[in-house]
Amino acid sequence: MRINERKTNQLRPVHIETEYIIHPEGSVLISVGDTKVICNASIEDRVPPFMRGEGKGWVTAEYAMLPRATGTRNIRESSKGKVSGRTMEIQRLIGRALRAVVDLEKIGERTVWIDCDVIQADGGTRTASITGAFVAMVLAFGKLMDSGVMKEMPIHDYLAAISVGVLPDGTEILDLQYEEDSQAHVDMNIVMTGNGEFVEVQGTGEEATFSMSQLQTMFGLAEQGIKELITIQKEAIGKWAEVIQSTKSGE
Amino acid sequence: MRINERKTNQLRPVHIETEYIIHPEGSVLISVGDTKVICNASIEDRVPPFMRGEGKGWVTAEYAMLPRATGTRNIRESSKGKVSGRTMEIQRLIGRALRAVVDLEKIGERTVWIDCDVIQADGGTRTASITGAFVAMVLAFGKLMDSGVMKEMPIHDYLAAISVGVLPDGTEILDLQYEEDSQAHVDMNIVMTGNGEFVEVQGTGEEATFSMSQLQTMFGLAEQGIKELITIQKEAIGKWAEVIQSTKSGE
Amino acid sequence: MRINERKTNQLRPVHIETEYIIHPEGSVLISVGDTKVICNASIEDRVPPFMRGEGKGWVTAEYAMLPRATGTRNIRESSKGKVSGRTMEIQRLIGRALRAVVDLEKIGERTVWIDCDVIQADGGTRTASITGAFVAMVLAFGKLMDSGVMKEMPIHDYLAAISVGVLPDGTEILDLQYEEDSQAHVDMNIVMTGNGEFVEVQGTGEEATFSMSQLQTMFGLAEQGIKELITIQKEAIGKWAEVIQSTKSGE
Amino acid sequence: MRINERKTNQLRPVHIETEYIIHPEGSVLISVGDTKVICNASIEDRVPPFMRGEGKGWVTAEYAMLPRATGTRNIRESSKGKVSGRTMEIQRLIGRALRAVVDLEKIGERTVWIDCDVIQADGGTRTASITGAFVAMVLAFGKLMDSGVMKEMPIHDYLAAISVGVLPDGTEILDLQYEEDSQAHVDMNIVMTGNGEFVEVQGTGEEATFSMSQLQTMFGLAEQGIKELITIQKEAIGKWAEVIQSTKSGE
Amino acid sequence: MRINERKTNQLRPVHIETEYIIHPEGSVLISVGDTKVICNASIEDRVPPFMRGEGKGWVTAEYAMLPRATGTRNIRESSKGKVSGRTMEIQRLIGRALRAVVDLEKIGERTVWIDCDVIQADGGTRTASITGAFVAMVLAFGKLMDSGVMKEMPIHDYLAAISVGVLPDGTEILDLQYEEDSQAHVDMNIVMTGNGEFVEVQGTGEEATFSMSQLQTMFGLAEQGIKELITIQKEAIGKWAEVIQSTKSGE
Amino acid sequence: MRINERKTNQLRPVHIETEYIIHPEGSVLISVGDTKVICNASIEDRVPPFMRGEGKGWVTAEYAMLPRATGTRNIRESSKGKVSGRTMEIQRLIGRALRAVVDLEKIGERTVWIDCDVIQADGGTRTASITGAFVAMVLAFGKLMDSGVMKEMPIHDYLAAISVGVLPDGTEILDLQYEEDSQAHVDMNIVMTGNGEFVEVQGTGEEATFSMSQLQTMFGLAEQGIKELITIQKEAIGKWAEVIQSTKSGE
Repeated sequence: MRINERKTNQLRPVHIETEYIIHPEGSVLISVGDTKVICNASIEDRVPPFMRGEGKGWVTAEYAMLPRATGTRNIRESSKGKVSGRTMEIQRLIGRALRAVVDLEKIGERTVWIDCDVIQADGGTRTASITGAFVAMVLAFGKLMDSGVMKEMPIHDYLAAISVGVLPDGTEILDLQYEEDSQAHVDMNIVMTGNGEFVEVQGTGEEATFSMSQLQTMFGLAEQGIKELITIQKEAIGKWAEVIQSTKSGE
Repeated sequence: MRINERKTNQLRPVHIETEYIIHPEGSVLISVGDTKVICNASIEDRVPPFMRGEGKGWVTAEYAMLPRATGTRNIRESSKGKVSGRTMEIQRLIGRALRAVVDLEKIGERTVWIDCDVIQADGGTRTASITGAFVAMVLAFGKLMDSGVMKEMPIHDYLAAISVGVLPDGTEILDLQYEEDSQAHVDMNIVMTGNGEFVEVQGTGEEATFSMSQLQTMFGLAEQGIKELITIQKEAIGKWAEVIQSTKSGE
Repeated sequence: MRINERKTNQLRPVHIETEYIIHPEGSVLISVGDTKVICNASIEDRVPPFMRGEGKGWVTAEYAMLPRATGTRNIRESSKGKVSGRTMEIQRLIGRALRAVVDLEKIGERTVWIDCDVIQADGGTRTASITGAFVAMVLAFGKLMDSGVMKEMPIHDYLAAISVGVLPDGTEILDLQYEEDSQAHVDMNIVMTGNGEFVEVQGTGEEATFSMSQLQTMFGLAEQGIKELITIQKEAIGKWAEVIQSTKSGE
Repeated sequence: MRINERKTNQLRPVHIETEYIIHPEGSVLISVGDTKVICNASIEDRVPPFMRGEGKGWVTAEYAMLPRATGTRNIRESSKGKVSGRTMEIQRLIGRALRAVVDLEKIGERTVWIDCDVIQADGGTRTASITGAFVAMVLAFGKLMDSGVMKEMPIHDYLAAISVGVLPDGTEILDLQYEEDSQAHVDMNIVMTGNGEFVEVQGTGEEATFSMSQLQTMFGLAEQGIKELITIQKEAIGKWAEVIQSTKSGE
Repeated sequence: MRINERKTNQLRPVHIETEYIIHPEGSVLISVGDTKVICNASIEDRVPPFMRGEGKGWVTAEYAMLPRATGTRNIRESSKGKVSGRTMEIQRLIGRALRAVVDLEKIGERTVWIDCDVIQADGGTRTASITGAFVAMVLAFGKLMDSGVMKEMPIHDYLAAISVGVLPDGTEILDLQYEEDSQAHVDMNIVMTGNGEFVEVQGTGEEATFSMSQLQTMFGLAEQGIKELITIQKEAIGKWAEVIQSTKSGE
Repeated sequence: MRINERKTNQLRPVHIETEYIIHPEGSVLISVGDTKVICNASIEDRVPPFMRGEGKGWVTAEYAMLPRATGTRNIRESSKGKVSGRTMEIQRLIGRALRAVVDLEKIGERTVWIDCDVIQADGGTRTASITGAFVAMVLAFGKLMDSGVMKEMPIHDYLAAISVGVLPDGTEILDLQYEEDSQAHVDMNIVMTGNGEFVEVQGTGEEATFSMSQLQTMFGLAEQGIKELITIQKEAIGKWAEVIQSTKSGE
């Protein structure tokens, strides 16, 4: 039995609060258990130099943690003067994942900046960031559609992410919280679309290895967890859910 | 008349939510109008190298803004690889101000890390940070007293901060929000104690100057505003209010 | 049909030249087609500060490319003053992968520094680095055993890595060279042990997604490719192959 | 009684040597007691990118100390690879203060670079820098007027700065030298114009607080000290004194 | 007698392997005894900003060592985040030396990037870099001539470099290997042209001094060594040797 | 004929003002024509970590220019966040040169920090720095001898430096000022001892070469110039001149 009597295939409670910060075009606070991430989407009317003149847009992401989002205080990356390898990995992952469901041509020459700032961490911050960032991005595009700047929703499918892993006793579990994560032998993050297609699969044995059969069980857990997350995303985006649905069908 | 029909000597609505983040020893979310700052106080059981062996503690502060706390997105200081002059000024100010009401000897060889992270900005972020950080710090010391680690509250007075300024038409006003701040000819931040003593006075003519008489009017506005802030702080710290009061009388 | 009439499940020619550089404890030049990586293993008689006194060792890796390892010249990371996110990801991957087959307790308080320097690149540089680094590390440990400093080989299994991917026409292929990699819809790197267990699975849709069935086909290709690589590693490590075999059986 | 029998309201001897360095448009060596600062003003025929096309100029300042300007050697900021918070605060202060008396429109699209390099320090380096920089800037503009490049003196008033403070025994004093500064309970820097208007007021309790009455006494000391400094500035700028006077009267 | 029975005026075995890396316009691996340097020449079709529009080209060099090119592992300069003074000195030397025999006007607005990467070090890495880089540069220009992009060889003379020094017993020697270099009292690097003219003379007493007579002996040794190196360069550049000869005669 | 009717073998006027800054153990302002350098010598009672416990001292140097020491303003290296290659070369040269005449054993475990800050530049700043730094260092050691901390002068000979060069018309000249330096075909810096021994010889063809005969003429000019500089140094160090003389004779 897991902490708080969670079942192996059970997500922690997930809440997505929209319009959390007033300034960004799209803003949500996502909570997955005690993990809380502010996801802001900002739209800038230009693209990076290497993309100018191509008529396409770009989606990029940044990720950070408040120093005391965790049990012991971390030194700020701005004070250290450099971004850690872990942070870079995560922000590259978030940006890449989101781009898989966006039609960059439909954005026009705009950059979507996704900022995921973890204010409280209890495991699964990168997957919560992706799940929340998707909603913030949809809302930001929605704002541009409402104001007539954008003609169609440049998103052709849902996107959510979750972690799966293997406990020391061999049990495969869904949605690891920090205490589980720190003892797991395998840690895997999976990003999938509403269509059930994979976008990212990142599995790591932590000074351990894992078998093909364990891998398959983890895929099953993840698939189910992501379906549940997408249901929650649909509620959060409200009227835009229908628009994405129709875009998707049209493909 | 000011925006939202505020009077010249009227604070914006101020709220202090305690126990905001679960990990830090003390944590508050302070809102001053639309300005929102997470203030976390972390206690570390050692002091910086230059203070070791002196039996005294230290209080230091860091300040940052989320990239989209403001109307347009700012580049992250971690991405730029350096902390801006403005940030340094503010975090030095916060730490210095707090140290004025703390008995560093009573802390023992511990460091209090204050993290002020602005999640939404509408003017007055540095003064809101000081006002909120004071509460977070009291709560952190309170936690150590509750657990028996600390014998007495090492704080001998209240501390709060507010901005005052002069509008282009010459009116002196209290608690400038962003729109006012960006057009003000004079911008002054004042930090005071519960005793009505000054800790910091920082007044700047923005490509303008100010007279002795304007200065005196601003002092008056600040004094009254800070009294109101301290009343709100007292409610937020609950049972510790009494302890600070008695310490203060004992001096 | 692939470039040079390669079959979908066919590795490029792989060569591992040992004792390539004279100074390091272990040194190989691995060539996988036109990809060439110098893998040096250095043994330092101490561990990082956070591990001191635990009686365990550590394995860490660094990765770099010569500026002109690629078709157009890249700016040196030393000139830029920072290591890119891509480099960090790769060096973290290499270190983590190697640690999965090393008994850190058996190393004692030593650090194994793995340096993978790509002198010529044609796709698959990170997987070639892992495959070559494993050999360099075995040879370095072998040197310590020959000189009596180390009593047993602290490696309990083989380790190799390969890329698999999906071409735009949907074909799954093994060991992508640069031209294939740059057009592939899916790019996956897989690290496995001699036992056929997974150590890392990193699959990414490049502005695309992939299905469960494609994933399974790629796993099959990788499994076979890694078996072939381990055969080549065995030849390269010579007399130490037997030692690893017996260690492995003993588990 | 103060060191060297100085009175509480007495400045140290102040000298301003003009045309100190041959290359800059304006250059002075200012001595305030043992504090010596080289203040150079350089005029560049362009403005920072964010100001181009507005027809206005800009004034910016940099401040540094030689490593051995002080009793013990400081590490060079160039060696540390970053500018300290203290340095940033000071150079932002100098630039802001100077801009308060300059008509940026009259400069045209030019940047005035003020470099204040402390070669010997004994307290009050930032206020000496402002007082000296004002003279260097006037001389630089004078050079442009002499050569016909500039039509009128773009300065509408004098500007000088001084420190005031409170000693542990409660005495308020003018112009603190290092030994006094290091024990003072309050340290305040004041920048004023020839008209007696304030430009900056920065007062700090050093782990102490100060009362309204102390504040008023310090304002009085500063006002008188700044008058004396402006008299010395007038002599230093020679023929340009008259020009500033007339400009000022014209307002 | 020297190590390996070398005579005082004897070079170590020198080999220059051309077309070593496939991507660069010119690429050689130069070995001088156990010192091995990959020298790549890349031609970029533009010049640095400060040279645009002048119709001239530029030659610039970068130098680095693999971490384990030496007996003990060096920290990567990319990890340290800055290039050492030694590296800067060497890469400035290489670029300056090469420019002495290149007609920058004949290159047109192109930049020649020389990358010297030491993969194994045993003394004399900077002189081996210059000697090898000259060949890589000639081959790169040759490639442009073969493809018709460049009309004439923009090189008017040969260029090679060697070290000379004084052993503790006062013997002057040619081409110091690491063991000799580390004990030498004087270390001198000399760069000369095919005409026997000097390009660079850099002699340093290592906590020692040297006389005029020792200096003259070292010049003699260097002159002879450089002649031998140029003979080896001629073989390496093949058909281009004749072209340089005729250009040279034409002067 | 040279600028100001200087002869080819004529130094510019040289002045060395001692006790220039009050804080350092040794401090001089050296002027060579319009080149002015503040040379401070600071003695620290410890050595760098790599030298601890060896009973020896160390001499190290730093060099910088004020931004407006030159005709156009240079960006501060502290603002750029890194020290340029040129600066590194020069400070390494100064330290190395000084160490050639110091008995590091006689210093004990102390570090001598030499700071050369160019306040006005007109060519020859690195050689003026060495010549001035020698005097500052002698005075610093003298101070330690006067106070009884040091028993004997740890310097066994004089040390001075000068530039020589070749003008476009082929004339060899001594002590190049900026205008000459910027057009010279050859630029050479020579450091010699009172004994007439070489410490450093650094000659560079600036996109040009030079012959053996030119080299010899330059050596002659330098030798004579350095003798004159040493005479001026002797006057500057006063009573310590005799001490160095006797130390030198004793060898």
